[in-house]
Order: sequence, then structure tokens, then C-alpha cells
Amino acid sequence: MTIKESWLLPEGIDELMPQEATQLENMHRILVDFMRGWGYQLVVPPLVEYLDSLLTGTAKSLDIQTFKLTDQMSGRMLGIRADMTPQVARIAAHKLRHQSDILRLCYIGSVLHTLPTGLNGVRNPIQLGAEIYGHAGPESDIESIELMVELLKKSGAVSKIALDIGHVGVYRGLAEFAGLTESQEQELFSALQRKAVTDISALLDSYQISKDARQMLQELSELNGDKSVLPRAKSVLKNAPKSVQLALSTLEQIADALTQRIPGIAINFDLAELRGYHYHTGVVFAAYKPESSYAIAAGGRYDDIGEAFGLAQPATGFSLDLKKLATQLPAESFNQETIGVEWAEDSHLHATVKSLRESGKVVIYQFPGSQTSTTHTLVKQNGHWQVTEIGTQTRG
Amino acid sequence: MTIKESWLLPEGIDELMPQEATQLENMHRILVDFMRGWGYQLVVPPLVEYLDSLLTGTAKSLDIQTFKLTDQMSGRMLGIRADMTPQVARIAAHKLRHQSDILRLCYIGSVLHTLPTGLNGVRNPIQLGAEIYGHAGPESDIESIELMVELLKKSGAVSKIALDIGHVGVYRGLAEFAGLTESQEQELFSALQRKAVTDISALLDSYQISKDARQMLQELSELNGDKSVLPRAKSVLKNAPKSVQLALSTLEQIADALTQRIPGIAINFDLAELRGYHYHTGVVFAAYKPESSYAIAAGGRYDDIGEAFGLAQPATGFSLDLKKLATQLPAESFNQETIGVEWAEDSHLHATVKSLRESGKVVIYQFPGSQTSTTHTLVKQNGHWQVTEIGTQTRG
Repeated sequence: MTIKESWLLPEGIDELMPQEATQLENMHRILVDFMRGWGYQLVVPPLVEYLDSLLTGTAKSLDIQTFKLTDQMSGRMLGIRADMTPQVARIAAHKLRHQSDILRLCYIGSVLHTLPTGLNGVRNPIQLGAEIYGHAGPESDIESIELMVELLKKSGAVSKIALDIGHVGVYRGLAEFAGLTESQEQELFSALQRKAVTDISALLDSYQISKDARQMLQELSELNGDKSVLPRAKSVLKNAPKSVQLALSTLEQIADALTQRIPGIAINFDLAELRGYHYHTGVVFAAYKPESSYAIAAGGRYDDIGEAFGLAQPATGFSLDLKKLATQLPAESFNQETIGVEWAEDSHLHATVKSLRESGKVVIYQFPGSQTSTTHTLVKQNGHWQVTEIGTQTRG
Repeated sequence: MTIKESWLLPEGIDELMPQEATQLENMHRILVDFMRGWGYQLVVPPLVEYLDSLLTGTAKSLDIQTFKLTDQMSGRMLGIRADMTPQVARIAAHKLRHQSDILRLCYIGSVLHTLPTGLNGVRNPIQLGAEIYGHAGPESDIESIELMVELLKKSGAVSKIALDIGHVGVYRGLAEFAGLTESQEQELFSALQRKAVTDISALLDSYQISKDARQMLQELSELNGDKSVLPRAKSVLKNAPKSVQLALSTLEQIADALTQRIPGIAINFDLAELRGYHYHTGVVFAAYKPESSYAIAAGGRYDDIGEAFGLAQPATGFSLDLKKLATQLPAESFNQETIGVEWAEDSHLHATVKSLRESGKVVIYQFPGSQTSTTHTLVKQNGHWQVTEIGTQTRG
């Protein structure tokens, strides 16, 4: 290995130098405090678990994204978490199940992906998330979405937020109504995701389904836009089964509450938005910067996740990449005041340094034979140590 | 997989529930701020790197402790960090080398071990550390040790700290003086670690070394105790080579400065203390709770680590397991004030909740059909929302 190779990081793996690390640290504190104010309790799940536990109840896509290890202690397969949501669901379903009917939990931690995801191509995001367990109504979805938006505003990293909302129950209900086989549902899903209108038509032509079902599935990819989408959907999907009607009225309720609670929020409804289709069971939502197609935060309802851990309870929540968010902040000038101090065995000096540090100042001892650059220095004047700006100092 | 199995964590892997997670979060903030006050800049190295980079210049023991992965993007071997020190050394030697002659860096992050280490048997500690690069004199060792002790005091988790200090240069110099082969040096090292006096004698009898060397190596295991060890060592090792004399005078300088800087500190000198012998190049130190044999924090000088990254520079520092430290705090009563609020689309109520949260209060909306237990509630009195303690509330 050459010296050059030794300092290279793997592709998609990044690290933070002091300025960015400080931005991350500051934002971490602000957001944890913010979530705490909303009643979300912090938990710290482990970096690795048995693979079975990590992949329980989640989409197969997580399997591909998860690094696997053999545990030499148990001989069993471990996974490095690619997503903390299943871990927190395990905690809610098992360790904290007796604490309360409703659990609000939040978490922050490094996750790792085998391959880069999203546009930034990073494999080691820092995931921050907030989840509500134990409530099935639209109110918990409303709180999740509102918290997500308010958290992003609080971060200061995004000035304007566009919200995307969908509901997997619409497509799921229509697919069932049409009597699609599993593989048909899957191939049509894939075409809808790509919004490939001609593919959708061709697929629907090849299925033996009712005219009603065909038309509703065809129009699904067009049901996309502002709040006026919802009455339009009600009319277009009027013959759809009750589960679809229920999904639409949930969306309406959410839209009304959010419009009232977050004045000026831009909401886009997309009934063919099926992000996390295999994983989610209800409303799905994501926040974007208006000029970007990369979701800065996303979430949804996933009611069945706790089942494998012994408690099938409703759940809704969201997560985001805190590292990406923090490094989007405008770089601070970072011209922090630092006070340089000579190295001396002088207890009066030591006491002065201690009290300066306790008052929040950064004080750096200058080691003999070297000089760290600082903005200020401590100078003895009339027998007292005084903080003096460098350049203006006088002899004491 | 049964439900019971799905929630089990692997042996030696633990996680933190809300109360402990909050203790960890609070201590994280206090200690990062504390290190910042001493001029240490935070960096965030990644969870995984190329294995070669992680194991560069470090002891082979780290190799055994490191989980290995194949990177499907590069085909190369990755390691999950078992220790963040080599990562920070890489950053200091490469990314920040032009920033300053002297670099003070600190870090906090999860590390992972293939097998449990220490008495607590945990494989997923949270490592916190502080390192100084670019200074070879005892002053940087003094600062490292002082910071370690003051940080532990600041944490509030340890009321009394015992300090253990050694210097790998003593044994290394004597072994060289005696002309020990590499394998002799290794076997004697192992006997010294175990303080196995009869084994030491037997080994020394079997070597063809000078009488002087034999005696000095024999007495090494006895050079253990308070500050009086140092003059005794000077006398016993008076015929030792200059490197050994230099090590002793460095220890003396450190002892004097620490006694002055940390009034009342209990220092134990142990010249046969060889923790990290293959890794360290000078002073080694550790902090203990007086009643325990488990080091709560440890460090030392490791001057050669940057060489593999293109910059051989002096380095000294320490690290500790923040999770272990935080969970040693007396459990707080955790009877935090929480304010429950009815779920209503009432913009006056929403504004009241927002301002309560901004003032640091925890406010929890009660979802329809469920009741989260809280200490306070918001009650409308004379048209205004008032925080009322539960049990004392009156009708508005």
C-alpha cells in the first residue's frame, strides 16, 4: 500500500473536518432539543444486530443495502444497520411496550449502505428520525408531517420546503379491485413509479380486468398536483372500493390540518407516489427543496412492523440524513475567538485559564518551541492576567 | 425465527433506552464543550474504511478486534473501526497537516469489536478521545493527562480518580541494553505484564545477558508505587542507557507538573506498566476508580503513527468509553414535567403550544381515543390557555 492509498476513503464514504463537524454537532443539539419539546424520547439502538432482526418486516431492498458479518461469538449472521427504523420498532414493540399506549421515540446514528443511495452518492449517512407508535388515526400522521417540516425549518438549512404526500392504500386498493396477480401488481407498480404512461397503457391492455378498474389505474398516474387533486380523485375513483375512498378522505383530513397548522406550506399530492410501497401501509410523505428532486426527509405509516417482535401496533414517522442537512448550512466564518497562553507552572495563571474556559472561552496553551495561531493572548498587566487582542497588546 | 429470538441482541451488544440515552446525550454535550474550551477541534471520521488504513501503524491486536467486510464497489477489504485513534491520526497527517504545527483534535463515535474487551464485556463502546499532534515534549503529555482527569471530573460520573503512569521507553531501553532478541523481549514482556516474578527470574536466568542488565530487568517489576518510585528507579537503573534516564526524567517532569496542576491527585507510577507497548512510544497513562481495576480512560504517546500517512509527527492523547461513563451516573429521577394538550384545530392553542415548546417545555398532544400520561395539562380559563398541574385543575 502506498502512502497515497492509505489516506483514501472508499467511494461514497465521507468524513467531517472541524468546521463541518461543528455544524453537525450544533444541529444535532438543536434538533434533539426540538424533538424533546414535542415529547419524543431519545433511544440509542446498536450499530449491529442479528440480520434477522434488522430485516424483519421491512422491504427486501434493505437486505441488498445491508453489510453482513459473521459473529464469531454466536456463529450467526449480523448486519450493520442500513436503516434504524426497524431497530426503533423493535424497541417500541418489546422494551418499551408497557411504558405507554402511545410512544414517541427519536434517534440519531450512523447507518451504512453497501451501495450509494440518492443523488449525493453517500454510503454512510447519519440518520435522524422520529416515530409515533400506538396510534392509527390521521392525527399521528399530521403530527409526523408537521414535526418533519418544523424540524427542517428549525435546522436553518432549508429556506423553503415543498411537501409531497401520497397514500399507498390507493394503488393497493385498486390493484386488489382489479384482481391483479402479484407479478402484475409488481410490474404495474414499477411502470407507475417511472410514470411511464405508454408502458402503463400497454400493461393494462394485456390484463383481463374490468373497464372500471382499467380506467382508474390508467388515470392514477395523472392524479398529481395541488389540493385540487383530491376532489378530482374522488370523482375519478368514485367506483373504487371503500379502502380507496378511506385513503382519500384521510388525505383530505391531513391536507386541511396541515394547511391550517403550517401557513403557506406548498403541498403536492401524488396518488401514484409509491415510495416504500412494500414497507408502508398508509400515508407516505417527503420534503424537498423546491429546486431539487432529492428528498431531504421522508416518511410514512408502517402499521405492521412490530408484528415480528410480538406487538403489531400502528406506527408512523420520518427520517432524514443529518450529515447532509448540516453540511448544507452556509459555511460559518468560523473565526472563533481563541486565547493563546504561555506554558508555565504558575497556579495563578492556571486558575485564570480555568475560569476563562468555564465562561465559555477557548484557551490554548502554547507548548515550548511551537506557536499555535490564536486571535487573543493572555498578558500579565499590573500583576493580573488580561485577555488582549493580538496586534493591540502592550508589554505588561 | 421465533418472536423471542427476533428481539434478542447479540452477546456484548447493548442499546440505550430513553433515560440512559438522555444521560449519554447530556454528557456528550458537556464533554464536547469542555474539550472545545481547551482548544480541541471536533472531527467525525467514518464508521468504515479500507482495512489497510485502519490497521496502519497500529498493534496487531487491533486486527483481531476488527470486523472485516468486502466492499462490492471496489472489491477491496473494509474494516469497521475498532478504534478511532488511527483514523484521527490519518486526518491529522493528511487532511489537516497544513492547518497548524500543533493540532488538537477530539472525536466521539461508535466503534465495534469482534470480541468483548474489558470487564464489562461490551463489544460496541462509544469512543470519546482527544489527541495532540506535532509536539514531542512532556508538556503535551501533561496536557493530555490533565485534560483526561479534568474531563472525568467534569462528567460527574467518578468522584475520585486514581492515575497510573508508566513509560514504555524504560523496558524498551533495558531490553535493548541487554541485547534481548525479539522473541526474548516478547516473552519477558508477557511475564512482566502478568507481574509473574518467578517466571521473570527463570527467563532472565536463561538469557546470556550482563549482570547489570539482568538486575535492572529483575527489579523493574518492583518499581511500582507513589512518587518515591522515581528516585528509587534512578538509583536502581543508574547504569541503564541514556534513553532510560531520559524516560525517567520525563516522568519526573510530568509528576511535578501534575501534582501542581491537579491538587490532591493520587498518582501511581508503574515502570513495568506496558499497556499498548507495541503501539506506544513514550509515556502511557490510565485513570481508574480507586476501587476498580478497570481503566475508565487510558492513553499515551504514539509518535510514529502518522508515518504511514505521509507525516511522521509526534502524537499523544487518550480515549474512553462514553457509554460506560454516562451510564455510571446515578440514575436521575427523570420526573420531567410534561404538558398534555387536547388535539384540536385551534390556531390559538397551536400558538400557545409553540411558545411553550420554545421556552423549553415538553408539550404532548393527546391523540383522539388515547391518553398519554403527563404531569400537567393545558386548560382554557377565561379564554386563555393555562398550564395546570394534573390533580389541581379546575374547570375553565
